Amino acid sequence: MRYLAIIEYVGTNYAGWQIQKDEVTIQAEVEKVLSRILNTPTKVYASGRTDAGVHALGQTFHFDTIKKLDLDKFTYSVNSLLPSDMRVINIVEKREDFHARYSVKSKRYDYLINTGEYNPFERDLVYQFQRKLDLNKIKEALDALVGEHCFKNFTSKLEDDSNYVRKIYEASLTTEGDVIRISFVGSGFMRYMMRMIVGCLIEIGLGKMSVMELKIYLVETHRKIVPYKAPACGLYLMELTY
Amino acid sequence: MRYLAIIEYVGTNYAGWQIQKDEVTIQAEVEKVLSRILNTPTKVYASGRTDAGVHALGQTFHFDTIKKLDLDKFTYSVNSLLPSDMRVINIVEKREDFHARYSVKSKRYDYLINTGEYNPFERDLVYQFQRKLDLNKIKEALDALVGEHCFKNFTSKLEDDSNYVRKIYEASLTTEGDVIRISFVGSGFMRYMMRMIVGCLIEIGLGKMSVMELKIYLVETHRKIVPYKAPACGLYLMELTY
Repeated sequence: MRYLAIIEYVGTNYAGWQIQKDEVTIQAEVEKVLSRILNTPTKVYASGRTDAGVHALGQTFHFDTIKKLDLDKFTYSVNSLLPSDMRVINIVEKREDFHARYSVKSKRYDYLINTGEYNPFERDLVYQFQRKLDLNKIKEALDALVGEHCFKNFTSKLEDDSNYVRKIYEASLTTEGDVIRISFVGSGFMRYMMRMIVGCLIEIGLGKMSVMELKIYLVETHRKIVPYKAPACGLYLMELTY
Repeated sequence: MRYLAIIEYVGTNYAGWQIQKDEVTIQAEVEKVLSRILNTPTKVYASGRTDAGVHALGQTFHFDTIKKLDLDKFTYSVNSLLPSDMRVINIVEKREDFHARYSVKSKRYDYLINTGEYNPFERDLVYQFQRKLDLNKIKEALDALVGEHCFKNFTSKLEDDSNYVRKIYEASLTTEGDVIRISFVGSGFMRYMMRMIVGCLIEIGLGKMSVMELKIYLVETHRKIVPYKAPACGLYLMELTY
């Protein structure tokens, strides 16, 4: 049996999703709990990694088991053993050709920026930028980012033969008081891509970079990686669609 | 010169406000920073203690210095040295007969309860109760609490000759989605008083305690301390008036 789980977590205390030697990771915590409840070593396959400090409201992973699970009871057991900074929201049965990563149609990431006074209660949950930004300029840049682009300059990925083309379906900005929410829906996001895009958007909002310069990074044939990367704490993996 | 400061802090990582040997406390952090900037050992006097895990949005303290301070610059320096989970909001000059504790006219405390799904992002900021409560019953209890009462059964204070009478000016309940905010304005609050009151309100909201039983605790002449105490993480010292 193959199952798909939706999980939310506070990334602050973890070295990211993916298992790494000598590091506390979300995947390691989840596999430990599943293996214990299912009474056999159990691996999980996520929609993708999230980096250290990045949060998720709708990360997904699949796992296999020979057991037919009572999903309400099983979810309850998993949550009672998981650390208090993560929670499985839902688990559903899937066909065996379903894959949490390869079956993804689109991903949504949000980034939160506080442009107002420093807020100690949200210091790990919202980037405490504390300066005003020109939202119209940022919106103009968001419009320029929608569509299919080569994001070679917006990732730390090394392989020169990789496919760096990704499609952005939606890019929007909303405000909640002094907090700006920047939301992207796209076909996929490479490592640091969201944080480098937001890094540029902040420079644009400060008037230190033009939308034209952003466009040049998108078409530059020689690799010239953007020198801006917004901190992990403001980033949320919101939703996967399959 | 005497100065009054307003400070907000996340209580989670501290053994409360008051300095204690071998414990990390908010007062200790504040005194360390002030002593360093003023270049002389400096003591601070708060409006009152907050317990381990209790938060503040408007705690106040006063301190004395022979220097005439440039308040904007001084506040900035203090905040740049304080830990990231606290922030001085404002500092004003006061007459030398002003006292952060003895001059207080009223205090406001709020308590936050999440009656919906467990929220890992707010696990230290809102009590994750995760059960529905009868809000009308709680409102009825709040009305019964307004006025002058003997709160001898709502504190751990030991001295039998203490004055246990406190006046509650306002007691209200509002909701923000699944989160209930219970707000009290009163002349003063003894140790655990808010948490014991909220402990009773939760029992009342569950239908396990009647408003009449609450009233009996308020008039009981023999001491019979309430056996309920809501966790520290939901409690906020909101505001002092002078």
